[in-house]
Amino acid sequence: MPKTKATPTGDTTTLNSVDTHLGKITFALIQTNFWVGDIAGNVKKMHALAIDAKNRGADIVVFPELSLVGYPPEDLLLRPTLGERVKDAMAKLAEIDGIVTILGYPHIDQHGTFNSAAILQGGVQKGFYHKQCLPNYGIFDEVRYFKQGRNQVLFDYKGATIGLLICEDIWHEHPIKALKEQGADLVVVINASPFEIGKQAQRKALLEKQASTHQLPIVYVNTVGAQDDVVFDGGSLIVQADGQIAHEAPRFLNQLMMAQYDVPSKQFSSQAKAPLMLSEESEMYQALVVGLRDYVNRSGFKGVILGLSGGIDSALSLCIAVDALGSDRVYAVMMPYEYTSSISLEDAEAQAARLNVSYTVCPIHDAVAGLRSSLAPLFANSQPDVTEENLQARARGTILMALSNKFGHMVISTGNKSENAVGYATLYGDMVGGFDVLKDVYKTDVYRLANYRNRLEDTPVIPERVITRPPSAELRPDQKDQDSLPDYELLDNILRLYIEEDLGYKAIVAVGFEPSVVEKVLGMVDKAEYKRRQGAIGTKITKKSFGRERRYPLVNGWSIKG
Amino acid sequence: MPKTKATPTGDTTTLNSVDTHLGKITFALIQTNFWVGDIAGNVKKMHALAIDAKNRGADIVVFPELSLVGYPPEDLLLRPTLGERVKDAMAKLAEIDGIVTILGYPHIDQHGTFNSAAILQGGVQKGFYHKQCLPNYGIFDEVRYFKQGRNQVLFDYKGATIGLLICEDIWHEHPIKALKEQGADLVVVINASPFEIGKQAQRKALLEKQASTHQLPIVYVNTVGAQDDVVFDGGSLIVQADGQIAHEAPRFLNQLMMAQYDVPSKQFSSQAKAPLMLSEESEMYQALVVGLRDYVNRSGFKGVILGLSGGIDSALSLCIAVDALGSDRVYAVMMPYEYTSSISLEDAEAQAARLNVSYTVCPIHDAVAGLRSSLAPLFANSQPDVTEENLQARARGTILMALSNKFGHMVISTGNKSENAVGYATLYGDMVGGFDVLKDVYKTDVYRLANYRNRLEDTPVIPERVITRPPSAELRPDQKDQDSLPDYELLDNILRLYIEEDLGYKAIVAVGFEPSVVEKVLGMVDKAEYKRRQGAIGTKITKKSFGRERRYPLVNGWSIKG
Repeated sequence: MPKTKATPTGDTTTLNSVDTHLGKITFALIQTNFWVGDIAGNVKKMHALAIDAKNRGADIVVFPELSLVGYPPEDLLLRPTLGERVKDAMAKLAEIDGIVTILGYPHIDQHGTFNSAAILQGGVQKGFYHKQCLPNYGIFDEVRYFKQGRNQVLFDYKGATIGLLICEDIWHEHPIKALKEQGADLVVVINASPFEIGKQAQRKALLEKQASTHQLPIVYVNTVGAQDDVVFDGGSLIVQADGQIAHEAPRFLNQLMMAQYDVPSKQFSSQAKAPLMLSEESEMYQALVVGLRDYVNRSGFKGVILGLSGGIDSALSLCIAVDALGSDRVYAVMMPYEYTSSISLEDAEAQAARLNVSYTVCPIHDAVAGLRSSLAPLFANSQPDVTEENLQARARGTILMALSNKFGHMVISTGNKSENAVGYATLYGDMVGGFDVLKDVYKTDVYRLANYRNRLEDTPVIPERVITRPPSAELRPDQKDQDSLPDYELLDNILRLYIEEDLGYKAIVAVGFEPSVVEKVLGMVDKAEYKRRQGAIGTKITKKSFGRERRYPLVNGWSIKG
Repeated sequence: MPKTKATPTGDTTTLNSVDTHLGKITFALIQTNFWVGDIAGNVKKMHALAIDAKNRGADIVVFPELSLVGYPPEDLLLRPTLGERVKDAMAKLAEIDGIVTILGYPHIDQHGTFNSAAILQGGVQKGFYHKQCLPNYGIFDEVRYFKQGRNQVLFDYKGATIGLLICEDIWHEHPIKALKEQGADLVVVINASPFEIGKQAQRKALLEKQASTHQLPIVYVNTVGAQDDVVFDGGSLIVQADGQIAHEAPRFLNQLMMAQYDVPSKQFSSQAKAPLMLSEESEMYQALVVGLRDYVNRSGFKGVILGLSGGIDSALSLCIAVDALGSDRVYAVMMPYEYTSSISLEDAEAQAARLNVSYTVCPIHDAVAGLRSSLAPLFANSQPDVTEENLQARARGTILMALSNKFGHMVISTGNKSENAVGYATLYGDMVGGFDVLKDVYKTDVYRLANYRNRLEDTPVIPERVITRPPSAELRPDQKDQDSLPDYELLDNILRLYIEEDLGYKAIVAVGFEPSVVEKVLGMVDKAEYKRRQGAIGTKITKKSFGRERRYPLVNGWSIKG
């Protein structure tokens, strides 16, 4: 067992140094994914990476926030055996020799559980830091699990005084300011910072400001990979004291990034060229690929199966699935019925062939006829309505689930955020599946991403007609989405204001939208909460996704107009 | 607009008094349900109840925690128009004349949003108190919404000094202690305290201890009724300074309870006899009835429809539905297939007749045959397995949903907690529905409740054979639940230790259970998280329900044995 040492406010721990490079400190930033709950596997991975970093000449290896247990561990943090498991794991990690190791772990003692960073060297835990700012908004519930840290922690190494922070800490003013006041020369921040559109630009702006304001270089290590509905996009950064970015790790990729700090000049050497900025479409698309890939691989399913309708949502979902898992793990099923047009059949087949995935046609006429026959005596005196449309969707859902049960592939659903928002989907029908690939992608962004993906190759992977034809669920003759919904451009603009910007009816009308349309859309969103509650999870890419980020009562009396 | 007045630590506001009863203060405790989000409706209700209380001679009327917006309002608290709505509502409530009004509301000012109690008198807001202890565990997320209050608040009325607290405050030591030190003669606590089995006994023990320790009488007002998965059970209390209970309101019922406090003797007069303790079965059953009733009524559905299988889960669910909504709003459908036994058909019909509900038999042979026919070309080379069993369950789910779509009744599902725990249910099959009546009821408690309900009437409402026959899903010949699961007595004992008591594998084995059974059960629970995530909500009755009270990652690498 390593000895642990509490480090009260302003105390500085001095670490031993191996002076291979006089006046230089080489950091290894480990941007990789640690699986939630898999402590033994994570320890093994950290051990190997630390040795690798040492062999490459690193003095200090830095792992992301809560790397020992993955992020977010949720109620696994309440399991009574966690403390023992962490203790054993930390003892194993302390055995890493010849390099200083900084890692994130849940620290459990008589004061409670903390979200902490440990400093390990030569078989000893030299110190630990407890996160001070605990996010408890959006997707975050850290106050549910963690006590708040109160102290700064610094350590001396090779003549430099290094301060520690964890994720949310750096978004606030006081923790970095306090480190500066206590003599820090540079700051190491470990993170599990989730992706959303434009997040890396926000991080850079923040770090540039924090570094230059306090004249402190920052080593910012982010995790990468997905956990359920959250994707971490990496993009770890080294920022100079003047706010200049010296290094930026690639986004969405595992990475061991080395960076050398010059103690006398308090500067990082910067030979590496920072990667190009990703376009918005590119970062969205990569997030969706990583989100699906990690979920499927960790769920233990061999592959995925989806209904390919000839429409744009399933077409884009198919591309993402193939890019995530490879074409040999993706199974497309076209399930035509009376209202399926011939161009839907042609385009679905063409796309499946182009992407080289297994493609099956399974007509649902018999399934629908059987269901209708069982219902016929009860429906004798009623007229056809949306019930019969839902029967088609549910026959398809049942067939997909039967194929999943029989052959072991996970069903993925393909409903987009606009549909999820207004409830334009059939529960237990097209909503079936373990993962909803486009759950947080607005319909207008589905078009953008489809065009983006097509531009990446000489021959478009999605037939042009799938993109240009008017969207339809094909559940009755000549049906179009726009029979029931406002034009998607208009719908998405209203939805963004209501969901992302959290504006109310009056404020949205004040922007210039037709009051009756706003009222209709907001009413649909509120009313569809019960459907969303039973829908599959999907990757968060916007600043407010459905699910744990937006927690609404199912039955409530809130009036739209107020 | 009323003037508002901040009341810093220890400050005491003096209220005007109408001295009808010299030396006496008459409290009216309003134990009723305020609908989440429906501010206008709640104001109207409060207004009428306050006038009623005044007419009955009350000096002070006390409404529960957050009565203005209902509890729990969740992310409605983040809506930008909330502040304006609350301001308008408080202005209307301040118009109540001739009585002091204490109510719960979200207080929004430049410091943030607080969970607060207001004191209104004669058109003026005389003061407010901000909750100090914010629960952020279990089902609670109050730190997501509220800032923490820091001050005590007291007010003088007719010579008595009254202190205010809100719910969680009274479960901690310091808030009541501080009130006593600042001269309080009695304490008013407003609550939205959710039901779980045995909760009222815990509340009484707590209040007896707090009152007698600090020699302070306590007026404890709880809300009643259900919101989504949470039921509030009322049981408001008046506790004397020596810890004796002077009054106890009935559980699960709306109530205006009057209590007279004698200022010189610091005692409540106590003529009323406290209601009898409810048995555990009785309080569980009533919670389930209230939970379903309020959900259905607020969802806007005309009634409910359920599949009646001849088994005990649907039999008990039917009783609860009839007790909640009346027999004319409940529709039972028996959906037999090849494996449905004749006794299932007989018992289902008998129970429906006994409870006087609409009963329809809808054989699913055609539906299953149609689905199998559509799948036949794809299943040509495979053997029958669980897929074919799931097809039956999904055919039934689809038929129920079709009846719901066509006739406007909400489907209720009937899966119990034991099944939900181990995943012994078919997603999109028997799991379809807007509300799962028995979601938090262990199978062994299903038996207890069935017997309890039968004892309430001379002729049993559930045929005896439904209770005594071995449980079966009837999805293949001679199938029994115990082919796949341990005996329910054993299963539930392990589940209670794992879920309610949060024990791990080693600790459960140490209790004396067979290691292989423990490993199997815990593995099933962990693996079924993805099914639960898409299941309907249902009323919480245990100390740890599935849903927002138990937040587990879907894919995770936590090993059972550690």
